Amino acid sequence: METQPEPAKEAAMDTVTGPDPTAEFEFDVFAKACVSRAAMEHITGRWGVLVLGGLYDGPMRFNALRRRVDGVSEKMLAQTLQALERDGFVRREVHSAIPPRVEYSLTVMGQGTAAKLLDLIAHLEGHMEQVLVAREAYDRERA
Amino acid sequence: METQPEPAKEAAMDTVTGPDPTAEFEFDVFAKACVSRAAMEHITGRWGVLVLGGLYDGPMRFNALRRRVDGVSEKMLAQTLQALERDGFVRREVHSAIPPRVEYSLTVMGQGTAAKLLDLIAHLEGHMEQVLVAREAYDRERA
Repeated sequence: METQPEPAKEAAMDTVTGPDPTAEFEFDVFAKACVSRAAMEHITGRWGVLVLGGLYDGPMRFNALRRRVDGVSEKMLAQTLQALERDGFVRREVHSAIPPRVEYSLTVMGQGTAAKLLDLIAHLEGHMEQVLVAREAYDRERA
Repeated sequence: METQPEPAKEAAMDTVTGPDPTAEFEFDVFAKACVSRAAMEHITGRWGVLVLGGLYDGPMRFNALRRRVDGVSEKMLAQTLQALERDGFVRREVHSAIPPRVEYSLTVMGQGTAAKLLDLIAHLEGHMEQVLVAREAYDRERA
């Protein structure tokens, strides 16, 4: 049996029928079928946050970025960069040299996104003492 | 990027790891072994973003939240809520009633975090047209 999307959701996502006038945007990450959800997972996934945040300092070659994003495997970094490049957050440039130099950098859209992610990171790092206290209390109550 | 500097943070940094004049905080999500990385994964994971964003509107029961976070399984929602509760972003309250009513809400720290995540979500939703154009161009070049 074919499942139909809910009417409100469809209106919020479908560019053909026009955007829902009550919605702020025509895309909605809370809707399972919205294309924005995959993009959100690319920028907020385990490595997406760190790759975008890492590139905020400037263009980087693959190996430098791999050192910056401590713990990422070659395969995962390549996959993350590819998804972010396809979505338009990251630019991959090959400079002719011997050997060719490949550099990754943020697009303008990537810069705006990375700035928000770095804001979130700073917020979290600034609250980690509080997080650790909360974890201790949680574990103590259940010990 | 940091909006509210807290002197206490710097003091805490000095006592725990010794002063690092270049570090803004003693925690660093870019370092593989830092405890902040797990916390970051909880708030930026596939479901963490949507659960925190969904709870920003107010306290919610499990099933209402499950409808809000379209596509999440019972198991994943329970796991996500538990990790966020342990880290101090989410509060779980059992109200005595028949049957008992269990409500989830954001702590003050959770509210601040959710506000930043919603800011990121709005930013992404507002750039999705651009993301789709980028995806098309990427796929066309490689077709």
